[in-house]
Amino acid sequence: MTGKLFVIGTGPGNPDQMTPEALGAVAASTEFFGYFPYIDRLNLRPDQIKVASDNREELNRAQTALIRAAAGVNVCVVSGGDPGVFAMAAAVCEAIDAGPDDWKSVDLVIVPGVTAMLAVAARIGAPLGHDFCAISLSDNLKPWEIIEKRLRLVSEAGLVIALYNPISKARPWQLGKAFEILRETLPATTPVIFGRAAGRPDERMLVMALGEAAAERADMATCVVIGSPETRIIERPGLPELVYTPRFLKDASR
Amino acid sequence: MTGKLFVIGTGPGNPDQMTPEALGAVAASTEFFGYFPYIDRLNLRPDQIKVASDNREELNRAQTALIRAAAGVNVCVVSGGDPGVFAMAAAVCEAIDAGPDDWKSVDLVIVPGVTAMLAVAARIGAPLGHDFCAISLSDNLKPWEIIEKRLRLVSEAGLVIALYNPISKARPWQLGKAFEILRETLPATTPVIFGRAAGRPDERMLVMALGEAAAERADMATCVVIGSPETRIIERPGLPELVYTPRFLKDASR
Repeated sequence: MTGKLFVIGTGPGNPDQMTPEALGAVAASTEFFGYFPYIDRLNLRPDQIKVASDNREELNRAQTALIRAAAGVNVCVVSGGDPGVFAMAAAVCEAIDAGPDDWKSVDLVIVPGVTAMLAVAARIGAPLGHDFCAISLSDNLKPWEIIEKRLRLVSEAGLVIALYNPISKARPWQLGKAFEILRETLPATTPVIFGRAAGRPDERMLVMALGEAAAERADMATCVVIGSPETRIIERPGLPELVYTPRFLKDASR
Repeated sequence: MTGKLFVIGTGPGNPDQMTPEALGAVAASTEFFGYFPYIDRLNLRPDQIKVASDNREELNRAQTALIRAAAGVNVCVVSGGDPGVFAMAAAVCEAIDAGPDDWKSVDLVIVPGVTAMLAVAARIGAPLGHDFCAISLSDNLKPWEIIEKRLRLVSEAGLVIALYNPISKARPWQLGKAFEILRETLPATTPVIFGRAAGRPDERMLVMALGEAAAERADMATCVVIGSPETRIIERPGLPELVYTPRFLKDASR
């Protein structure tokens, strides 16, 4: 009999945004595999073993976890946010797909969580209140031309756009280029939200118009949400502004 | 001083998928506004008052909650899933935007949750492992032509597509038409997931190829996820199949 292989999301980092289901998976596991900042969010017992790894080693990490689960150990693969959104659930599936047959029998339990764009949206209003998309801006795993094509099509479609992995030291220019492309289709007044570390002590929310949006305002902990032409801003005296996208859309010309 | 106005998501319905933050908001509130099946998910104290309403009365419900919060009561507006995804957070923002000035001073706290597509994805593998979008198929709030246009553009973009509100008694043909449109762009073998009531006792997960996908397999509790051309199925002996979208994409022609 195999062990269980849990794949969990910690949520965006506020412990109150981690579900009881994910906490239950943590309690039931003895070995933990993940990028170290995510593993460090967990309060583990002395008998629970951390196997931290770097954030470029997803497939390797998934394979190691599968070997241990197939050997009968209850293991937990840890993602931030939701494990199914640009995270470890796909890496574990890839490893099973390409791996030895006995990995297909591993008792796999994927536990959903609150993904970054939902936490950012909640802090600023309801920018994802209508049709939206989530696109990873990392060209490590797909060609940049595909990212450009997707940005053009989804902005033409009028979707709100959540950009994951917007910027890093190794990818400094992609976000600025994305803003350039979106300016070709979207009004310069379209609200852009730089949602950093939503729900954590170092949270920072910033709203700029697309015409002025500067890539330097984002870092690796930022989820960038670009509104649709319908997205609106509510100014509130003495309180942060609210950004939301109405549920209705009347203009059939779009 | 106003009361607090919490806008929470219960998650998809499994109590273990509701966050401690949402439970804290429930404990801090005395009046509850929402569609009755969502309010009924909460274990309320005798002093807590339920004001249930029908699921077509979002704006009215938001206004009533704002009146009560402005009067000093701590109120809780309850959505299923995440309140920011096709749910009450946008309705509350709309009401504030169009309402009297004092509603802008209400202490608004939006609490994110696990939205249906994440729960469905977790139960079936990792279909949202790469770029994806969420589109409401309801033409009550936007013209059908816009929905068609969006479906064409996002399938051309190669995004995985999560359809919310796929079907209802009043909207019987829209999902079938959506499948027709997607068949024009996507391979007939593209996996389609009918994810019903994920995480609840009446859960039902069904995977069909787009070529055979039949709208009758969905109901109001279903989130329909249509893969991209890269989405893959892993057959597992004695276990349900896994559906996932790889994190990488090598084919620059798409």
